[in-house]
Amino acid sequence: MNELTWLDMPCADLSETARAAAEAHQHALTKPRGSLGRLERVAIQLAALQGTSRPTADQVHIAVFAGDHGVAARGVSAYPQSVTAEMVRNFAGGGAAISVLARELGAALEVINLGTVTELATLPGVLSLHLGAGTADFTAAPAMDEAQFAHALAAGRDSALRAVRAGAQIYIGGEMGIGNTTAAAALACALLALPPQRLTGPGTGMDAPGIARKSAIIAQALAYHAPQLQSPGESLRRLGGFEIAALTGAFIACAQQGLPIVVDGFITTAALLAAERLRPGVRDWCLFGHRSEEPGHALLLEALGATPLLDLDMRLGEGSGAAAAVPLLRLACALHNGMATFTGAGISDQGAA
Amino acid sequence: MNELTWLDMPCADLSETARAAAEAHQHALTKPRGSLGRLERVAIQLAALQGTSRPTADQVHIAVFAGDHGVAARGVSAYPQSVTAEMVRNFAGGGAAISVLARELGAALEVINLGTVTELATLPGVLSLHLGAGTADFTAAPAMDEAQFAHALAAGRDSALRAVRAGAQIYIGGEMGIGNTTAAAALACALLALPPQRLTGPGTGMDAPGIARKSAIIAQALAYHAPQLQSPGESLRRLGGFEIAALTGAFIACAQQGLPIVVDGFITTAALLAAERLRPGVRDWCLFGHRSEEPGHALLLEALGATPLLDLDMRLGEGSGAAAAVPLLRLACALHNGMATFTGAGISDQGAA
Repeated sequence: MNELTWLDMPCADLSETARAAAEAHQHALTKPRGSLGRLERVAIQLAALQGTSRPTADQVHIAVFAGDHGVAARGVSAYPQSVTAEMVRNFAGGGAAISVLARELGAALEVINLGTVTELATLPGVLSLHLGAGTADFTAAPAMDEAQFAHALAAGRDSALRAVRAGAQIYIGGEMGIGNTTAAAALACALLALPPQRLTGPGTGMDAPGIARKSAIIAQALAYHAPQLQSPGESLRRLGGFEIAALTGAFIACAQQGLPIVVDGFITTAALLAAERLRPGVRDWCLFGHRSEEPGHALLLEALGATPLLDLDMRLGEGSGAAAAVPLLRLACALHNGMATFTGAGISDQGAA
Repeated sequence: MNELTWLDMPCADLSETARAAAEAHQHALTKPRGSLGRLERVAIQLAALQGTSRPTADQVHIAVFAGDHGVAARGVSAYPQSVTAEMVRNFAGGGAAISVLARELGAALEVINLGTVTELATLPGVLSLHLGAGTADFTAAPAMDEAQFAHALAAGRDSALRAVRAGAQIYIGGEMGIGNTTAAAALACALLALPPQRLTGPGTGMDAPGIARKSAIIAQALAYHAPQLQSPGESLRRLGGFEIAALTGAFIACAQQGLPIVVDGFITTAALLAAERLRPGVRDWCLFGHRSEEPGHALLLEALGATPLLDLDMRLGEGSGAAAAVPLLRLACALHNGMATFTGAGISDQGAA
C-alpha cells in the first residue's frame, strides 16, 4: 500500500487573515450589513480559501470521472451499462449537460475514463486509464483490487494537480457510471453506519420495487464485507467504484494543494465523505453546489455540516449541479470586489450595527 | 381616473404550442428524464412565454424605481431618508449591488427616480419624474393623490414599453426607498386580509422593539384606511409608494406586452400581488428569482403559488435577488438548446418512462 502514502500529506491551511480582511471589506460596502446573505458569506469563504481579500472564481476546472460497475449486472439501474461509454463519447462530443455547462462557463473540461465495459477508441479530451472493464460485483468480491484502488485514487490526484498547474481557482469533480448510485449508497451506509433503506433512492429513475431490490442488494454487500467496513479506505475499495475513488483522490489532493472545490450531488458527496474520513480537513476546502433530488444526499450533507447553494431538484450527476452554482460564486466575487463603500460613495451608514 | 384605462387591457396569451414543443425536446435530450429538475421546467416555461421552442435569456432589462415614503418620519427604518437619494446616485455611479450585477450580466440598467426627499441634480442613466418629495405619511392620509398614483403606474408601464422596444427577453423590476418594507407590508396586509404581525419584518435591520413599533404603525394605517381597502387599486394608492405603484404598472404592462418578468423580493412581490389583483393573469408572466430573508415574503409567494429559484438569505432589494437568478435562466436555455439528443448521439434511452 505504499502508493497510498500521499494520502497522509496534510491539507493546506486556510488564511484567517484574508478571511478577516474580506469580512471587514463586506461591512464597508453600500448595503445593509448581511443583506446579500450567502453571496457575502461565499465571498468571505473564498477569500479564506484563496488567501486573498479579493477572491475570484473565473478559472474553473471540471473533471468528469467515468467507470462501470460490476453490480450493474444485478439490475440496479434503469439504463444498460453500455450507456457509460456512450456518455463518455457524448462528453467528448460536446452534447452532454456538463459539456454545455462547461462551455457556457468558459470552464476547462477533462474526462477521465477509468474503465468501461465497452472499449472506446481514443477521443479528444478523454484520458483513458483502462483499470478494468468495470469493477467487480461487490456483492461477492471487493469492487476493486488494491492496485486498481491505488490507481483510481492517483488518477483523481493527478487531475487535481493538472488543475493546479493550469491555474484553476475552482475545482469541480463530476461522475458518470451506470450503477453508481448503488455503489455510493453502499459506501455511505458503511461510512455513516446507516441501513440501506435510508440511503437508497431512484438514481436515474428506478420505481419503488426497483429501489427495494437495490436496497436488498446493498444489504447483501454490507453483510459480505462487514468485517472490513470499519476502515474508510477498505469501505471505499470494497463498495465504491473507479470514478468514486478517483473523486476521493481528487478532493484530497485539492485540499492538500489548497484548491477550493465545489461539490456536486449524491455520488460526489459520498466520495467527499470518504475523503474527509481518510484525510480530515478536506471538507474545509469545499463549497457545496446543490442539493440533489436523490434522497440520500440530505444525510451526506448533514454528516458534513453542509448547506448547498442551490436546490433545483437536479439529479443528473456529471458535476452539473456544482457547475450550475458557479455563476453565483462569480456574482458573489463581483459584488465583493466591485461595489462602492459607504465612505467612497458618501452614503450614510447609520443603520450599521 | 381615465389615465388608468390601460390597466384593463388583457394580458398576452402564453403559447401552449411552444410549451409542448419545448417539453418534447427536453425528453429527447441525453439525460434521464427530469434529471435537470427546475432547469428543465424553467426552459419549458420560458418557451411558453416567448412563443418559441428554443427560448433565450440573453437580453435582460433591469429597472430600479426609487421613491421616498412619508411614513419614514415615524421611525420605521434603520436608515435616514437621505439614503434613498444617495443610493440613486450610487446606482448611477455603478457602485450599488444592482449596478455590479447588471454589469456582470451584461444587462441594461435604468433608474427611475419618482420622487425623493433630497433633490438630485441630473444623473446619467437616471430618469427623474418628481412626483413629490416622497409620499404622504399614510397613517394620516393616502400615500398618493390620484394624479401621483396614475403617474407612478404609467412610469412603470413606460419602463416596460422601453424594455420591449429595446428587444428585452427578460424584465426585472427593482426598488429603493427608505421605509418601503413598511409600505409593502401594509399593502400586503390589505391585499391578503392578514394582521400586520404576520407581514412586518426587520427590513434593513430593525430590532424586535423596532419591528413591534413598525407593526403598530401599520395597524394604525390599516384602521385609518379600512373603508377603502376592499379595492386593490385604492389599497395600492393609499398604502403603497411611488416605486411600488410603478412596479405594479411595469408588471401589468409586461404581461400585456408578453415580456417575461423575473420577480425580486418582498416589496416587488407585494407590487406583483397588487398587479395580479388589478389585472388577473400577470402572475403567469413571472418567474420568481429568490426567496427573501424578509419573513413576510413567504406569505406573498404562497398567495401567488410561487416557488423561487434561489434561497440565499438575501434581503437587499434593488432587484438583486432577481438578477442573481438570471444565470440559471441562461444555463437552462443553453442546456435546452445545446444538448445532444439520444438519437443524435446514438445513446440508448431504455431508461425513459
